[in-house]
Amino acid sequence: MAVDPSIAAEAEAAARRSEEAAEAFFRAAPPLRDRDRVAASVADFVARHSAGSGGAGGPAEGARVICITSGGTTVPLEQRCVRYIDNFASGQRGAAATEYFLKAGYAVIFIYRRGSKQPYCRFLPEDSFLDLFELGEDSEIQVPQSHSTVVKAAISNYRKAIGEGLLLKLPFTTIFEYLQLLQMVATSMNCLGHHGMFFLAAAVSDFYVPWESMAKHKIESAVGPLNMQLNQVPKMLFILRKIWAPSAFCVSFKLETDPNILLQKAEMALKKYGMNVVVANELANYKDVVVMVTSSGRTTVSRSSKEEDLEEQLTELLVKMHLEHIRQPGSEDR
Amino acid sequence: MAVDPSIAAEAEAAARRSEEAAEAFFRAAPPLRDRDRVAASVADFVARHSAGSGGAGGPAEGARVICITSGGTTVPLEQRCVRYIDNFASGQRGAAATEYFLKAGYAVIFIYRRGSKQPYCRFLPEDSFLDLFELGEDSEIQVPQSHSTVVKAAISNYRKAIGEGLLLKLPFTTIFEYLQLLQMVATSMNCLGHHGMFFLAAAVSDFYVPWESMAKHKIESAVGPLNMQLNQVPKMLFILRKIWAPSAFCVSFKLETDPNILLQKAEMALKKYGMNVVVANELANYKDVVVMVTSSGRTTVSRSSKEEDLEEQLTELLVKMHLEHIRQPGSEDR
Repeated sequence: MAVDPSIAAEAEAAARRSEEAAEAFFRAAPPLRDRDRVAASVADFVARHSAGSGGAGGPAEGARVICITSGGTTVPLEQRCVRYIDNFASGQRGAAATEYFLKAGYAVIFIYRRGSKQPYCRFLPEDSFLDLFELGEDSEIQVPQSHSTVVKAAISNYRKAIGEGLLLKLPFTTIFEYLQLLQMVATSMNCLGHHGMFFLAAAVSDFYVPWESMAKHKIESAVGPLNMQLNQVPKMLFILRKIWAPSAFCVSFKLETDPNILLQKAEMALKKYGMNVVVANELANYKDVVVMVTSSGRTTVSRSSKEEDLEEQLTELLVKMHLEHIRQPGSEDR
Repeated sequence: MAVDPSIAAEAEAAARRSEEAAEAFFRAAPPLRDRDRVAASVADFVARHSAGSGGAGGPAEGARVICITSGGTTVPLEQRCVRYIDNFASGQRGAAATEYFLKAGYAVIFIYRRGSKQPYCRFLPEDSFLDLFELGEDSEIQVPQSHSTVVKAAISNYRKAIGEGLLLKLPFTTIFEYLQLLQMVATSMNCLGHHGMFFLAAAVSDFYVPWESMAKHKIESAVGPLNMQLNQVPKMLFILRKIWAPSAFCVSFKLETDPNILLQKAEMALKKYGMNVVVANELANYKDVVVMVTSSGRTTVSRSSKEEDLEEQLTELLVKMHLEHIRQPGSEDR
């Protein structure tokens, strides 16, 4: 079917605007600390896991690498940051998914918010890990019987993932750090072609204060109310899909508090950003049920008990879809 | 010296405005979850530690109770909160002070931001406590020799404080929770008279969005910039001093990024809110040096090496000043 040339021109213009907005964002962002060292560790990780992927002759089940993003990004309101806007996100979903994708044989680049939930640590008491431990009579460290199995499994699984070089952890705090890391990882993973996957569970700010226009010092709490104007963050999903890693399998998330607009917004994101899957979740029950929205329909995923991780089923379905994506390379090229 | 009646009238009017603003804030705030249970645990804790304090005949060195606040408060921008404004504060100072005040014989009510630094856990790697542990040959939990002493001391000190009932921990996230907890603890501690102390190290928001005027659902990231108007949070230090616990020894903190205005603002806070001590610190070097501002002058406290906690010296000085405050009850009555 022929595309209406005016629609095509409009889409092209929108794409150009997005790219310009993204370029302006990165130009103005404060540079990532330790950029060269981080870039080298990412390149090295991808190179080690790229055997068997990408090239047309590689085995479909060969090395698969996933980039999982997790936790909320912050928007500083001052350059020497005391105040910032934050997005609610415990990092539970990304941390759990990391465990299940590692189990499924993936190498995982985990881009996470400092202080958010970590893989294999999700069961821990939130604020006092010391509650888990006791000293024995010879002052050896003991874990109460009730927690022993789970703590030992955590230590052992974590050591295994790190020891086998299957997990690379990259922390961020601000929206500036997050998007620079995502760009770095995505362009680096581009060489993996269809074997690369993105699981974009981080809660990314929609609005930010451009670095140049930001107050240098702490905003004075003088008399009267405070007025703030925030700019929109450029839609980087679009750039990721179009420029950074066009052949990868892309899963993004849509969180809303209002169920009436959720699925409609997920469908929009699917089309607008060319995602392979958009996972729709509601704040009220995101641990219990999600809807996977794809171009071929909707699939509801729910857990049958509080003891289960929803991410176990979700990962299983996504791994299958990713394998199909790898086996039909031509059909998904963009 | 006679006070100018017009100045006294002006001060009285300002006080009334503060009280009205505080009342309006609490009326509109979403009620604390589990309020009754928390209030009972606070009342019980204070009652257990009130022996020997308060009454004129009690021993000056008798039971002393300190309320330490720690970490930053958040300001929700939506009722079903996805986005919020946060204040930078690791909780390092409050967590360290809690350890030193416990060591000095105080009972401590620790009002802390969820996820902030905890007493005896400050040495831990930020995001992966699992890095501290290994499994031995018989799959027993081991701590590498390098960390063994410090981990064992932490477990033992923490168990001791909890076991002896000397530490009560109360978590908060939002400015609404924080101020309701502070009011509850302060009015409960009022019976301790001069034996009560406040160490107000939490980074409290200056601006907030009143609950009624807050968006119910997630703010739409539609086209164009976002405009927000934030109201000032009423100055609760004033109310704490005047109404909640007028005889307690009060230490507040002033953090600025601009050193040129820091001491002047600390002096202002000392007078305006009737604090006993205002600790002035700069974001750039708050772990290395602070200035204690009192009505009788300024004292600089600095640490001589990175291995030291500034809070050790700070606590020592404050404990001495609190004892003087207890021994001269008449002079400090307000």
